[in-house]
Amino acid sequence: MKAIGADTRFDLDEGNQFYEFEVERPEPTQYELLVRVKAISVNPVDTKIRQSPVDEPPRVLGFDAVGVVEAVGEEINHFKVGDEVFYSGSPAYQGSNQEYQLVDERLVAKKPKNISAAEAASLPLTGLTASETLFDVFKISHNPEDNKGKTILIINGAGGVGSIATQIAKHHGLHVITTASREETYLWSKDMGADIVLNHKNDLVKEFEKYEISEVDYIFCTFDTDQYYEKMIELVKPRGIIATIVAFKNKQDLNLLKPKSITFTHEYMYSRPLHETEDMTLHRDYLTDISEKIEANVYQPTLNEVIDGLTANSLFEAHTKLENQNMIGKLVIQLNQES
Amino acid sequence: MKAIGADTRFDLDEGNQFYEFEVERPEPTQYELLVRVKAISVNPVDTKIRQSPVDEPPRVLGFDAVGVVEAVGEEINHFKVGDEVFYSGSPAYQGSNQEYQLVDERLVAKKPKNISAAEAASLPLTGLTASETLFDVFKISHNPEDNKGKTILIINGAGGVGSIATQIAKHHGLHVITTASREETYLWSKDMGADIVLNHKNDLVKEFEKYEISEVDYIFCTFDTDQYYEKMIELVKPRGIIATIVAFKNKQDLNLLKPKSITFTHEYMYSRPLHETEDMTLHRDYLTDISEKIEANVYQPTLNEVIDGLTANSLFEAHTKLENQNMIGKLVIQLNQES
Repeated sequence: MKAIGADTRFDLDEGNQFYEFEVERPEPTQYELLVRVKAISVNPVDTKIRQSPVDEPPRVLGFDAVGVVEAVGEEINHFKVGDEVFYSGSPAYQGSNQEYQLVDERLVAKKPKNISAAEAASLPLTGLTASETLFDVFKISHNPEDNKGKTILIINGAGGVGSIATQIAKHHGLHVITTASREETYLWSKDMGADIVLNHKNDLVKEFEKYEISEVDYIFCTFDTDQYYEKMIELVKPRGIIATIVAFKNKQDLNLLKPKSITFTHEYMYSRPLHETEDMTLHRDYLTDISEKIEANVYQPTLNEVIDGLTANSLFEAHTKLENQNMIGKLVIQLNQES
Repeated sequence: MKAIGADTRFDLDEGNQFYEFEVERPEPTQYELLVRVKAISVNPVDTKIRQSPVDEPPRVLGFDAVGVVEAVGEEINHFKVGDEVFYSGSPAYQGSNQEYQLVDERLVAKKPKNISAAEAASLPLTGLTASETLFDVFKISHNPEDNKGKTILIINGAGGVGSIATQIAKHHGLHVITTASREETYLWSKDMGADIVLNHKNDLVKEFEKYEISEVDYIFCTFDTDQYYEKMIELVKPRGIIATIVAFKNKQDLNLLKPKSITFTHEYMYSRPLHETEDMTLHRDYLTDISEKIEANVYQPTLNEVIDGLTANSLFEAHTKLENQNMIGKLVIQLNQES
């Protein structure tokens, strides 16, 4: 079978180091599914890992995948051969940038039936990140009534994570404020369900004044945490919660959290799979919930662009797009397999 | 009436700058109680504020107080003249180091009937800090059954906050691990209910190995956060929570929280009173709960030393003790009033 990998870390300006190679199709054991991959998405984390040292070359990148179960391990009890599934997997396995991939069934759910493989590929990693942040970190209720009167600020509302986080938060009764800076990102974020879209080219404190917004309960930072760290502390309520998914460039003053007793979480959706926590099946639950809400037309996929065919070139093109522009929604690569 | 204050910040080695002065007895309005103070405790925060600039001299320090309601504001509906009360008040008022003090009734509860004023003075600030950390930050359940199997590490178990936090955590079903380093602090912490007392003179990771303790759900740091920051990240479970009440000396690397998606809170019990949050009456609720559990002999006071008579000298003596040694439990000053 075909896989796309690289033997070394590389920057985009070194030219394309991805290459296509043949590798033996792996056999699933225990809780593993072997999935024939139909679509993948490229996430910012892929571009970051591409730039980190390679332990065992060739390294195959990619988390999000949609595909069909081809074979199952002996302990599998949630899926059968032929099931269409979606997932973002675990860093413990080779990535999804290949024709067939192994994945732990505890991290997998049925693909929503009413959307394409490409559309479904836009959802797992961002949907899990948003679900963990909203339900595990902010601990919002699954009952929208309980969340009435609570407000969330999502920085960079039109990004991949911001797009699905906006939908989940809105559906669960939160008042949702996002940020964007261009006409198209403003409209995209509104379409995802944002009540108010602030302009992050302006000072957010002034934007809060302009729209008469008081301090918010939750802030979810999906862009440049260093830039927003002190600002978020200013904009959150006493005893409020700030979460980020973007690593810091610099050390920070944690005493700034004290006067308002602020809680800060560095959300990382691979913490459960990496440490194989007992509750890692929550990923299956979160994805199942998203799948059901997509089928009920409560949520919509966040796909914005599809590249046809997974090759070393198309993958390099996707990484280039992700690194060189602020993506709106998600970029997906569709595999051209004889099905 | 008599008050003890200082006109400037000062360090202990500058000599005693506290002095006694006469001031008019204030009148309570609205939600205010006027309390005739019978006992106060001295907290580490008092010594820190003493060393910070004075805005309006003379500044009267002191948070914890126990006393009798002498007069009430027009909106008071929870207390009446003659009630014995305890509280740690708010930085918005002059402190408790005086004969009479104003306090907002939303922060006050009835003193436990079965203990002395001095014993009761050991509880409010530390009890509120521990309650907020356990119930608001760690979000432990009020039902001990729900907390079974959860483990907390309390760094410096024999300190004022550690002593009451240990009791509350233990009573609510948590497995409680504390740290201490001397025979007397070890025994004190055991007496407060600790299941295991580690020696914080040793590397805590090695102590965990020695006692075969795996990663814990919650870590509550009440001593030198800089020293323990990286260690706590190592010792807490994936998606665990770390809280501190001790300000940092240095900036820290927040990215260290990422691999395990750790939540960090800088607990500060005056965040509610200072910002006059809607839920600041939680302080009355927490203190009422502690009072009832003291009366039911579920909790015990954490008093360890009493100084008789509030004077400029006795207050200086108390500050000196707090700054120069690691206190076990709490230090209280008893006022000598004709009652």
